[in-house]
Amino acid sequence: MPQLSKTIVPMMDRVLVQRIKPQQKTASGIYIPEKAQEALNEGYVIAVGKGTVTQEGKVIASELKQGDKVLLPAYGGSAVKVDNEEFLLFRDSEILAKIL
Amino acid sequence: MPQLSKTIVPMMDRVLVQRIKPQQKTASGIYIPEKAQEALNEGYVIAVGKGTVTQEGKVIASELKQGDKVLLPAYGGSAVKVDNEEFLLFRDSEILAKIL
Amino acid sequence: MPQLSKTIVPMMDRVLVQRIKPQQKTASGIYIPEKAQEALNEGYVIAVGKGTVTQEGKVIASELKQGDKVLLPAYGGSAVKVDNEEFLLFRDSEILAKIL
Amino acid sequence: MPQLSKTIVPMMDRVLVQRIKPQQKTASGIYIPEKAQEALNEGYVIAVGKGTVTQEGKVIASELKQGDKVLLPAYGGSAVKVDNEEFLLFRDSEILAKIL
Amino acid sequence: MPQLSKTIVPMMDRVLVQRIKPQQKTASGIYIPEKAQEALNEGYVIAVGKGTVTQEGKVIASELKQGDKVLLPAYGGSAVKVDNEEFLLFRDSEILAKIL
Amino acid sequence: MPQLSKTIVPMMDRVLVQRIKPQQKTASGIYIPEKAQEALNEGYVIAVGKGTVTQEGKVIASELKQGDKVLLPAYGGSAVKVDNEEFLLFRDSEILAKIL
Amino acid sequence: MPQLSKTIVPMMDRVLVQRIKPQQKTASGIYIPEKAQEALNEGYVIAVGKGTVTQEGKVIASELKQGDKVLLPAYGGSAVKVDNEEFLLFRDSEILAKIL
Repeated sequence: MPQLSKTIVPMMDRVLVQRIKPQQKTASGIYIPEKAQEALNEGYVIAVGKGTVTQEGKVIASELKQGDKVLLPAYGGSAVKVDNEEFLLFRDSEILAKIL
Repeated sequence: MPQLSKTIVPMMDRVLVQRIKPQQKTASGIYIPEKAQEALNEGYVIAVGKGTVTQEGKVIASELKQGDKVLLPAYGGSAVKVDNEEFLLFRDSEILAKIL
Repeated sequence: MPQLSKTIVPMMDRVLVQRIKPQQKTASGIYIPEKAQEALNEGYVIAVGKGTVTQEGKVIASELKQGDKVLLPAYGGSAVKVDNEEFLLFRDSEILAKIL
Repeated sequence: MPQLSKTIVPMMDRVLVQRIKPQQKTASGIYIPEKAQEALNEGYVIAVGKGTVTQEGKVIASELKQGDKVLLPAYGGSAVKVDNEEFLLFRDSEILAKIL
Repeated sequence: MPQLSKTIVPMMDRVLVQRIKPQQKTASGIYIPEKAQEALNEGYVIAVGKGTVTQEGKVIASELKQGDKVLLPAYGGSAVKVDNEEFLLFRDSEILAKIL
Repeated sequence: MPQLSKTIVPMMDRVLVQRIKPQQKTASGIYIPEKAQEALNEGYVIAVGKGTVTQEGKVIASELKQGDKVLLPAYGGSAVKVDNEEFLLFRDSEILAKIL
Repeated sequence: MPQLSKTIVPMMDRVLVQRIKPQQKTASGIYIPEKAQEALNEGYVIAVGKGTVTQEGKVIASELKQGDKVLLPAYGGSAVKVDNEEFLLFRDSEILAKIL
């Protein structure tokens, strides 16, 4: 998991996620051409907002915490660049599952 | 039902489902060509999230539990690959029925 | 009403319905060609889910019960096949009316 | 108002309505060709459901009752055939007005 | 304001409105050709429903009453013909403003 | 701010606004051709409705009052003509900001 | 952060934001052609509205305050010009994250 040069605090029920990069070499050390690299739908939670704010102003904390490995939806999320790396901001409820 | 190498915990009201594969041989052992295999809308529940989180932050557990045989809608669900097998994540309310 | 080989328990506010088949012979026993058979918007309720789950987690039972004859909307519903027969799953609120 | 051979009980907040047929003769008894007959947006309420079911499961009875003459919207409603006559099922809130 | 031959009771939060007709003569009595007549977005409230029915079944009476002069939106409303005159049914909340 | 010949009372959470006209002369008195005049997204509040009516029938007064200078969205609002001048009716929540 | 000649008070849950301008020179002082300047999705909060007004009329203050550095979505927001500079008005919930 990357160590960012600045602290990102997602707003409300948002989570900052980094998609796990597809494998670039085979087990035996041969480079896989970029087109043949399989896109992964797994990522790590880098930061979590304070939670969902209800109509009554109550805050419901996320099920997720920093460091969680998660299953990401194929589409969606807002791409942002921090320290020249690609991250995604999702709403907590868009994350499909945790991987233990 | 498959034994996964990692534990998948669906988020909130989501359920992890595996569609039952269409029959590949006839009763008498003759292979059915792939095009003639009938797609099935039945599956098994592999894992269940903690439940629907209401506006008040209350959790309503799903009617479904691991191992349930279910009727799946023709469309929808998020396809995910775990251990090189295809699974689907549905919201609990998208599942059509349980089969006892 | 058909006797199914397996028990189907519709999820939540869903109902399992079988559309009544159009008449295939006239009163005097003459077969009606398939194209001239009039599609019917009537059906029988085969199974009923436990009911609508409200935002507060309360369950509101359906007005419908197994065996009810109902008026079906022209479109909608999820087609499912059980024992090689066609059935439809509707949300309780999509059913137009009961026929007594 | 027609006397139906079967009792239709509309579901929830639905009402069964029959559109008033356009005049087929002039006052002096001359037949009006079908194309020149003016479509009417008036109808009679034939049957009324038990009412709107709220999120809390409370039932709010309709303003309408059997026999009411009503103004119908130009579009919408589900057409159904009972005893070979055309009827319409509307949600209570789609009816525009009562005519006293 | 027209005197109708029948009483129209709008359903719920609906109001029956008659659009004010564009001027057909100039101040000096010259007829304005129909194409040059300016469409007006003003009307009179002819009848008012009992009010908005809330989720709890409470009725919130309209701000409007019979005889009010109102500003109408450019689009929307359901056109109905009563006594061969054109009227419009709007939901209370679609009316833009009262003119005192 | 214009003095209207009639009182306009916006319905509910609506506000009557007049867009500030673009400058027609330069500081030195030279006329700017109409095409070069810059459209302004500022306006004055001419009249304010009684407020938002909640699901419970409670009225929440607007933050805005007559005479407020406001930032208007680029699109939206219902154009109305009063005393041959152009005005706009917006819902209170569509106004972007107050300018003090 | 700019010092505006007039005070802008965003309505309700809106925030006034200024996008950080892309770098126009390299570290060594060479001008970057406008096309090569990278658009930034970071900005500063210039002003914050009083907060979200709930259905019950309660005000929920924003997580954001004047001076906060924020991550902005790629699209959305209403562009406004104040003192000949470009600003954006966003709803509080559209802001992706704070940068500390």
